[in-house]
Amino acid sequence: MKPQRFSITPPTGRSEIVVGDSITHLPAALAAIFPPTTRFTLVCDSGVPKTVISGLQHKLVAQGFSTQVMGIASGEASKTLRQAGKMYRQLAQDRLDRKSCLIAIGGGVIGDMTGFVAATYLRGIALVQVPTTLLAQVDASIGGKTGVDIPEGKNLVGAFHHPRLVWIDPSLLKSLPKLHIQNGMAEVIKYGAILDAKLFQTLEAQADDLLQGYSPLWDPIIARCAQLKAQIVQKDPTETLGMRALLNFGHTVGHAVEASNGYRDYLHGQAISVGMFVAGYLSSHLLNFPDLERIRLGTLLTKANLPARVRRPIERETLLSYLQRDKKAEQGSVKFVLLKRIGKAVSGQAIPEDVLDAALGMSGL
Amino acid sequence: MKPQRFSITPPTGRSEIVVGDSITHLPAALAAIFPPTTRFTLVCDSGVPKTVISGLQHKLVAQGFSTQVMGIASGEASKTLRQAGKMYRQLAQDRLDRKSCLIAIGGGVIGDMTGFVAATYLRGIALVQVPTTLLAQVDASIGGKTGVDIPEGKNLVGAFHHPRLVWIDPSLLKSLPKLHIQNGMAEVIKYGAILDAKLFQTLEAQADDLLQGYSPLWDPIIARCAQLKAQIVQKDPTETLGMRALLNFGHTVGHAVEASNGYRDYLHGQAISVGMFVAGYLSSHLLNFPDLERIRLGTLLTKANLPARVRRPIERETLLSYLQRDKKAEQGSVKFVLLKRIGKAVSGQAIPEDVLDAALGMSGL
Repeated sequence: MKPQRFSITPPTGRSEIVVGDSITHLPAALAAIFPPTTRFTLVCDSGVPKTVISGLQHKLVAQGFSTQVMGIASGEASKTLRQAGKMYRQLAQDRLDRKSCLIAIGGGVIGDMTGFVAATYLRGIALVQVPTTLLAQVDASIGGKTGVDIPEGKNLVGAFHHPRLVWIDPSLLKSLPKLHIQNGMAEVIKYGAILDAKLFQTLEAQADDLLQGYSPLWDPIIARCAQLKAQIVQKDPTETLGMRALLNFGHTVGHAVEASNGYRDYLHGQAISVGMFVAGYLSSHLLNFPDLERIRLGTLLTKANLPARVRRPIERETLLSYLQRDKKAEQGSVKFVLLKRIGKAVSGQAIPEDVLDAALGMSGL
Repeated sequence: MKPQRFSITPPTGRSEIVVGDSITHLPAALAAIFPPTTRFTLVCDSGVPKTVISGLQHKLVAQGFSTQVMGIASGEASKTLRQAGKMYRQLAQDRLDRKSCLIAIGGGVIGDMTGFVAATYLRGIALVQVPTTLLAQVDASIGGKTGVDIPEGKNLVGAFHHPRLVWIDPSLLKSLPKLHIQNGMAEVIKYGAILDAKLFQTLEAQADDLLQGYSPLWDPIIARCAQLKAQIVQKDPTETLGMRALLNFGHTVGHAVEASNGYRDYLHGQAISVGMFVAGYLSSHLLNFPDLERIRLGTLLTKANLPARVRRPIERETLLSYLQRDKKAEQGSVKFVLLKRIGKAVSGQAIPEDVLDAALGMSGL
């Protein structure tokens, strides 16, 4: 696939997204954007192959850029204020100034965390995202959401801070375990379900091959997801208009499932898969979402080894309290994104209590 | 004085500033801006009289607003990530949502801290500033700068987050100790020095009365300072163009003095007074700032009991390392704001090493 480029122009700057170009070309792209005096810090996930990091660092240094490397454990446990505090101190000791830039290389945790630090160090410095998981490539790296967790909930602290550049090299997924391909597949299926019936059909046709792991088949699919995300974000860069809420399909229940298990028992994709099953059921009851389409959604999720039900029941009261704590909740009322059909979602749907009750029950909740 | 109103329209919203109206009218003003379902949390300084807080809370509750109160110790020691972490958790437990609002009532520390939390809780919620010290009324509450300290420096972590409303009631200064009137006077003198020769003359004429403590003489002076700050911020809301750098007169050395003493030995106004003496000396040497005007500046600062010299010498190497760590520093070179004459400043001045050396020596540095 020829590299594809998209851009988002939020009021605060310009964000460019490149999909399908090799990471070995990133230093040259950075040299075209940032002046030679820029100081870079690469913030890396322990899961990223060392050769990728050292290759990038050497090329940046060869371009004349001052370049530091900072390693962080992958996993949600790293997304804390305490970790942010350590990073700020290291950046200050390394004398990063307002014209410096952080490059996040890794999965969603590294991207969220590095993005938050870039948003708040010296009141905001430049950020480049280099996502290395499927989940981060199709979703988390695009759109400027950054965040850290507090005991009361995930991403309850954060900022909107759009990366100057998002460099998506799908071939980095070669080393990604199959479980994480499945995990990212949940978000890919979501894009098809809410916005693009044709993408959904392609996924149905190619699922067996796609789920084997990275192959060039993935390139146009990742590019399409990145484009859809960029289009939505462009319309609503700080999530004030409700358009961006569509992306939350499956996430209302998904976030509550993750939270009420202390973010330990479910990968994000697994939790939102349960959420999509619940939302599909609600959609059939409230919006006449056709049964046949609901079955197609369920079949595709199941093919990707994604769950319809939670493994262990969650106490209803706990779950409801997490639902109400959702960031998108307003004055305690929870709103859902539902489907009219595959490829067509609507947001802001209030749900009668008995219908919600039944839908949660179907997923063992 | 009739209440005066100014506004700033950064790309992200609108910030209104009201000077000279009583705090008892604030709840009605809030009711005109925020819907009745808004949840407020008042974040208060231990220095604010309890009657002011409870009066405000009762009126807000009477307007039908859900209203919480959160107390925080005043003083720079409160401006930590740890303190921010406690506040986030409390807000989440109190179920503040994206449409909620924080009201900061107190001095600069409370304003910076509450502003940072408002900027980052749920990726940003509304903020109202009610400054109760002279320093906060003329400077810190206006302009959207928020921040917390890390061991490497003050305000190295923060965000730009413009308050929806800044409510400046100068009569709240009645209970302010004289030392803090002097402290704030340093910033007031700064406005005259960099932007407004007429204000400077008024300060010279009224200094004896002003320094006694609050009287209605203060109202037009505070209003003028707030207006000047608003005008500068309007031109450069996120400090990218360098205009806003003018406000940093005296602050380059001032911040280094504060930092190298661990923020213990000097009030902010005292530290920037030393910085203004240094900058005055540099201005005479490099920009032919007239000696007579430099003496007028020194005389006015001295009248306000503000220091020309540090009380104890600071090791030169330590001081220089803090100067280079200044947020406005770029690639290690420190830039100064200097005066051409009273009322006319220029920013971005690089200083020959020997001249800086001599100027620092004059202030015992």
